[in-house]
Amino acid sequence: MHTLLILSRHARDYHALVEAARLPDLAITATTDPGVASDAAGSFDLAFGEPALLRQILPALTGVGWVQSTWAGVEPLLDPALRRDYILTNARGVFGVQMSEYVFAYLLAHERKIFEKQASQAAGRWDPEPPTRLRGKQLGLLGVGTIGAALARTAKHFGMGVKGYTRASEDSADVDRYFHGSLAEVSAAFASDLDYLVSVMPDTAATRHLIGDEFLRALPPRAVFVNPGRGGVVDENALAAALQDGRLAGAVLDVFETEPLPADHVFWRLPNVRITSHTAALSAPPDIAPIFIDNYRRLVQGEPLRYRVDFERGY
Amino acid sequence: MHTLLILSRHARDYHALVEAARLPDLAITATTDPGVASDAAGSFDLAFGEPALLRQILPALTGVGWVQSTWAGVEPLLDPALRRDYILTNARGVFGVQMSEYVFAYLLAHERKIFEKQASQAAGRWDPEPPTRLRGKQLGLLGVGTIGAALARTAKHFGMGVKGYTRASEDSADVDRYFHGSLAEVSAAFASDLDYLVSVMPDTAATRHLIGDEFLRALPPRAVFVNPGRGGVVDENALAAALQDGRLAGAVLDVFETEPLPADHVFWRLPNVRITSHTAALSAPPDIAPIFIDNYRRLVQGEPLRYRVDFERGY
Repeated sequence: MHTLLILSRHARDYHALVEAARLPDLAITATTDPGVASDAAGSFDLAFGEPALLRQILPALTGVGWVQSTWAGVEPLLDPALRRDYILTNARGVFGVQMSEYVFAYLLAHERKIFEKQASQAAGRWDPEPPTRLRGKQLGLLGVGTIGAALARTAKHFGMGVKGYTRASEDSADVDRYFHGSLAEVSAAFASDLDYLVSVMPDTAATRHLIGDEFLRALPPRAVFVNPGRGGVVDENALAAALQDGRLAGAVLDVFETEPLPADHVFWRLPNVRITSHTAALSAPPDIAPIFIDNYRRLVQGEPLRYRVDFERGY
Repeated sequence: MHTLLILSRHARDYHALVEAARLPDLAITATTDPGVASDAAGSFDLAFGEPALLRQILPALTGVGWVQSTWAGVEPLLDPALRRDYILTNARGVFGVQMSEYVFAYLLAHERKIFEKQASQAAGRWDPEPPTRLRGKQLGLLGVGTIGAALARTAKHFGMGVKGYTRASEDSADVDRYFHGSLAEVSAAFASDLDYLVSVMPDTAATRHLIGDEFLRALPPRAVFVNPGRGGVVDENALAAALQDGRLAGAVLDVFETEPLPADHVFWRLPNVRITSHTAALSAPPDIAPIFIDNYRRLVQGEPLRYRVDFERGY
């Protein structure tokens, strides 16, 4: 018999979805409150929920051998001060659709000048200014996992060129050219002809502030930066300076070093920045529950779990 | 020897593009001014240009046997008072890319709430309101020619369902279900589950005000209407009433019965209307010149010309 703690803002939804799967030999406790969960913490051998909530009671979950995160990002559980004597799996493979809709909404909005058209309309002005075209433009992806691959596929549908920067993987055939190694060394070849740069890199020691002044200077001034990935990969001061100096045409920012973005942050006041308040890809229970369910079946059959996080690598 | 009149706002570009093709036995006169063209009008046997300009000197072009339009819409040349003793061909097959970028820019903008996010940003407000998804939504196409087929293909890329209403053709395999016959008779089956309705119908006697009060009442209140096609197919009073009464969620309008849209038109003041000022798909000389060039080669080889317009049918 396994005993599962579901600790999530969506505890009720996850409880219903996991119960509906009629998993064998499983007793479930579901709550939104880490305080409630901590009373019986020692009795659970499995946990499923948001890393930010699980972190609060991780020291008390002494019997837990496997934690399934409902999020892709597991930073709250990577603090070196926390225990790492369990298997941690995260959510992957389900964000490509949302990310693709998010990124291409803003790429097409930029080409079609939809905010400019909206401003003309507000002024009651017929505005025949011609749009530009996404077809033939160049997209650069920082990170090509399942999300990057989904973005590359949509880019190809729209007739774009696609470049990808990864640590080593070359899994997506929709990427025309891959770049590896030190970003500083490849930045001229990778970045100098981009119309759009999209970061879907995880937040790790190796990616921290990777998008800084030096890399931003490799981009052409027409480029638009889109960040639906992680805020920590961007040096926000360097990005703000590039946007203010006209070295970058615009930025679409979903994630930040501090969230919610502080009220006095310069990004709120830059006219070429779009702020989307960490909504690019949300963990919806109907998408995420099947990942736990599949992994639970693997657990009871003695198979390796999918999407295991390497604590050292950070993803 | 053939003698060609190029009469276009882009006369210089078209002249250069046609000359670069080194077509055999062709003398070219290119001008932006119908007055200049009319002096030598009787000497031309071919004409290539904008229907609105060609219309002004059509009676004087007594020797012309073939007119290639730079536009898709040839309404100015369809007036029954004008001569029809020549072959008229229009521009087709080149607008799918622009139309697809236009339509999906606004469909994705709607799902991702990008205007609402923009308003939150202007107010300095972090806005975690979740977006919705295009995947799984239902698109209805009024007209499935080359443009409709391009829209259907992009809709399928994004995982949408697609319904198509046509006179008789069923050429696109990306349409899940076709509807024909009287729109009034099929409107319940065609329209009642649509999230988006896009009209790419030509403006003909048969399509005039086809989108009127009765058809609009068949749409669910969540539906958004997009019209990058022709203004004449819409009863604008009926559309404005549906938008004001909340029987329709929104409209994205590129074309109107009168253009530019008059300053006192109600559409300027409706918050759920987006006006794009007839920019959805523009006739760019690099796209259009190859159509003339291909048809000229067909002419000298005695082959049938492509994209011939039926004066009675209107397209």
